Amino acid sequence: MRIALAQLNPTIGALQENAKKVETCYAEAKANGADLVVFTELSLSGYPPKDLLLYESFLDQEKDLIVHKLAPLTESGPPMIIGAAHRQSGKLYNGAFYLEKGSIKSIHLKTLLPNFDVFDEERYFTRCTDRRVELIGTLPVAITVCEDIWNDNDFFPDPLYDTDPLVNLFAQGAHLLLNLSASPYHLGKHQLREKMLPFLARKYNSAVIYLNQVGGNDDLVFDGSSLVYNNRGELIYRAAAFDEELFYVETEDLYKKAKKVIPPDHDNISTVQQVLTLGIKDYTAKTGFEKVVLGLSGGIDSALAAWLAAEALGPQNVLGVLMPSPYSSEHSIKDATALAENLGIENRLIHIDKPFQSFIELLNEENKAIQDLAEENLQARIRGNIIMHISNREGHLALATGNKSELAVGYSTLYGDMAGGLAPLSDLPKMMVYELAEHINEQNGREIIPHNTLTKPPSAELRPDQKDEDSLPPYDILDQILYYYIEENLSTGDIIAEGFDDKTVKKVVRMVDTSEFKRRQAATGLRITTRSFGIGRRMPIARGYR
Amino acid sequence: MRIALAQLNPTIGALQENAKKVETCYAEAKANGADLVVFTELSLSGYPPKDLLLYESFLDQEKDLIVHKLAPLTESGPPMIIGAAHRQSGKLYNGAFYLEKGSIKSIHLKTLLPNFDVFDEERYFTRCTDRRVELIGTLPVAITVCEDIWNDNDFFPDPLYDTDPLVNLFAQGAHLLLNLSASPYHLGKHQLREKMLPFLARKYNSAVIYLNQVGGNDDLVFDGSSLVYNNRGELIYRAAAFDEELFYVETEDLYKKAKKVIPPDHDNISTVQQVLTLGIKDYTAKTGFEKVVLGLSGGIDSALAAWLAAEALGPQNVLGVLMPSPYSSEHSIKDATALAENLGIENRLIHIDKPFQSFIELLNEENKAIQDLAEENLQARIRGNIIMHISNREGHLALATGNKSELAVGYSTLYGDMAGGLAPLSDLPKMMVYELAEHINEQNGREIIPHNTLTKPPSAELRPDQKDEDSLPPYDILDQILYYYIEENLSTGDIIAEGFDDKTVKKVVRMVDTSEFKRRQAATGLRITTRSFGIGRRMPIARGYR
Repeated sequence: MRIALAQLNPTIGALQENAKKVETCYAEAKANGADLVVFTELSLSGYPPKDLLLYESFLDQEKDLIVHKLAPLTESGPPMIIGAAHRQSGKLYNGAFYLEKGSIKSIHLKTLLPNFDVFDEERYFTRCTDRRVELIGTLPVAITVCEDIWNDNDFFPDPLYDTDPLVNLFAQGAHLLLNLSASPYHLGKHQLREKMLPFLARKYNSAVIYLNQVGGNDDLVFDGSSLVYNNRGELIYRAAAFDEELFYVETEDLYKKAKKVIPPDHDNISTVQQVLTLGIKDYTAKTGFEKVVLGLSGGIDSALAAWLAAEALGPQNVLGVLMPSPYSSEHSIKDATALAENLGIENRLIHIDKPFQSFIELLNEENKAIQDLAEENLQARIRGNIIMHISNREGHLALATGNKSELAVGYSTLYGDMAGGLAPLSDLPKMMVYELAEHINEQNGREIIPHNTLTKPPSAELRPDQKDEDSLPPYDILDQILYYYIEENLSTGDIIAEGFDDKTVKKVVRMVDTSEFKRRQAATGLRITTRSFGIGRRMPIARGYR
Repeated sequence: MRIALAQLNPTIGALQENAKKVETCYAEAKANGADLVVFTELSLSGYPPKDLLLYESFLDQEKDLIVHKLAPLTESGPPMIIGAAHRQSGKLYNGAFYLEKGSIKSIHLKTLLPNFDVFDEERYFTRCTDRRVELIGTLPVAITVCEDIWNDNDFFPDPLYDTDPLVNLFAQGAHLLLNLSASPYHLGKHQLREKMLPFLARKYNSAVIYLNQVGGNDDLVFDGSSLVYNNRGELIYRAAAFDEELFYVETEDLYKKAKKVIPPDHDNISTVQQVLTLGIKDYTAKTGFEKVVLGLSGGIDSALAAWLAAEALGPQNVLGVLMPSPYSSEHSIKDATALAENLGIENRLIHIDKPFQSFIELLNEENKAIQDLAEENLQARIRGNIIMHISNREGHLALATGNKSELAVGYSTLYGDMAGGLAPLSDLPKMMVYELAEHINEQNGREIIPHNTLTKPPSAELRPDQKDEDSLPPYDILDQILYYYIEENLSTGDIIAEGFDDKTVKKVVRMVDTSEFKRRQAATGLRITTRSFGIGRRMPIARGYR
């Protein structure tokens, strides 16, 4: 049997367009002799559809496409398995529809509903307890949706759920585990998948096909990287990372020794680069923009963001704006200009001295700057105004260029450098910003991010001779403390016990806690780490816990 | 038996301070001869603690307070029932601790975990299935936590959950239903409670004590309004709305005819006023501010916000800033000044012409305004800069004054009039803004909101002779369409079928959909309606569904 597997990039809620993609793919698979065509979890709505699922009209349209557009295709073609929402007795389920000979033959409903981290599936769906193996040809197949395979009691020391649907499905004699997924990327996920999936194959002596969604949807980037294992747990095929692919598996290959060894995949800094470029590309296109605008300070963050945007959209679609203030150094303009030239992007120089001075005259008793925090923020906000003005007038998407370390400790100006529709680096710790910038220069064999940008001490340049390290611990220390506090949920005491300075840890934790109000109003970021801000970390603003 | 019931206002996460409140209350109740002292759901952490629950150290501290501070109080005093998180076999539960004679006698764990609307309890807690009635003295008591009583199959035509813990608890012979709640206010909730609770009393021939948290926590305002019913379903006592109260119930009164008839409570516009003043007061205090600053445009929204702030914090703690632009009308300054005088608040006049002109010179080819959307937004953002500058320099919390109708259709400027830490009116439709403003004048028997502010056609005054109705349908129509689309989740077709103009509905729905990116970065609002923006409505930004 020849199974076609469609790793596609849907747009959330674009039911008609997504269905058209499915149709095109199905036609191609059919032409290529497929005996079965499989699509990902919630293929028609895209994942995650969020509160669109609360609109009955949305569910009606989705169902209508299944019944009147997709099922009919299987009258004269191979069966199809596709993920979609399913209403039954007043409840909503996350299902895999098995379409055959023009109608819905069966629906396999999801049992394990992730409701942690960035996931909210209990908000929408009901857990299904009744699972049955589907006989496809002569092959008993466990058709599962995403999380359903992620609760193995032997693999995970602390399984999240009380039940493991696989136990029941394999007890029914399943010999192929087929998983329709929409699994967003975070650091370490490739390794985890490539350990867990072959474990299941070996444990149950079953082939495993893991089919994942690809593409950026707001803050989440789905990496594709679908995987096929034979019943010995040997990797047979790995689909494209960060790209669409329609690929084929011959079931006879699933139950014999692999023809060649495919080395395991490890995410690294170049994976991060792919996440960010795809995230920028898809967010821009899916919100209807072509071009982006961002401020270029001469610093590392805006340089990296500009490179990523140029890579994602083409340099002709990136506008960099240099906005020196009275406190900007000479090198900041020089470095930013060098970067723009290296990237081949358009750049504009707009001095903010005059509006800054006009605000000073309005807001200070004497007509001169007093260099307090309010004036630092004011400069950043004037720049924000200019970026948004260009965005509004010329129709560019504004990018905010702050990194995760800054966002964590609130070392950023709300409505200033935080202004923008997308903040591509906001889940990237500062040390990783450096690592990625250096990787880009190495990879290209030439200086793209200017050397001076990489080596000069980071500075906001909002008052004379300001350096980030005047206010913050060195970034290598800061990033470690932030990792323990935000990703590992350790307490101040626990972090100090890891060997960090008492005062520094307390200061950092306090900065994180008191800048929650800024993060609540931050632009959408692109998720990279195991705990990103935004819906991945839901914290009260008004709070007394320290 | 004399039961003391403590309707308190905790600060989220302030474990020590909240425990101190509990202790003080307990001491008072003990002095007043209480035989049992009861507190609300998650009393020590406050509700909702959100991702603080993911910190083991937080749970450790909370447990420590129960075991070493609160339980010991009951060695020489009456038993206590208090809501707190409970870890058991690697799972977390939302529990009611029954403390007696110095130790934890039993823990009653929540079964029904709300995970819709603004609630995320499945993110943190595990459902408990094993429930037992507690014999307190000779009285069999069903000790329940919040949602556990909200799934009666006879009362609700479509119950949300598969099980109803009350069926089991009353089968065990419970004769008093005690419910520890943290139930945030929304319109209509008073009526709903006062229908559902007596229904349960009559159905089970049981007394019902409903004890609710009070106070504002970020976007949610808890109204208190705890209720006591006898076993005939007659209301025996209603505690203070929007205020703390320690009150007492004699159990003998619970099983005989009520001494007097307490008329049912209906929320109305004055309830809304209480929600907003308490929300402003608590958000300001719990984030550590004393004073607020807001722009006064002469329009109805800023006038209402200023009145509410003055009511919540005292007029001496409110600073109104008048920021006329070249397009501001004469009456806008006059009306805003009149308002400030009526309220007795400080006001400042800052003309924005000069910074506006300096931006024009920087951004336009010729040195004059071209009056496009970018320049409209620019004026709003200059005002945002000034408000934030005052906030940063003088330590005032900035209030954004936009209403729900504007926020819904994106008729507002991101980083401009949307700038601020709290947006008190952002869940108040425009027609309700008018209703509340008129109510305030009536209630006070004099013109507080200036007559002209109430009667002039709404305008953003960002270009000459601009009126809201140039861009939007009349607010009475707009608000109805928004109600159907946002609160009722009706489709465009369904709304048109309600009798609205086809083009108007499509335009409004499109405006709502395309301004999601603005709402994602909006300031925290105060929840009033059954569906507020923010975590109450989780929508994708990049999306194709129309």
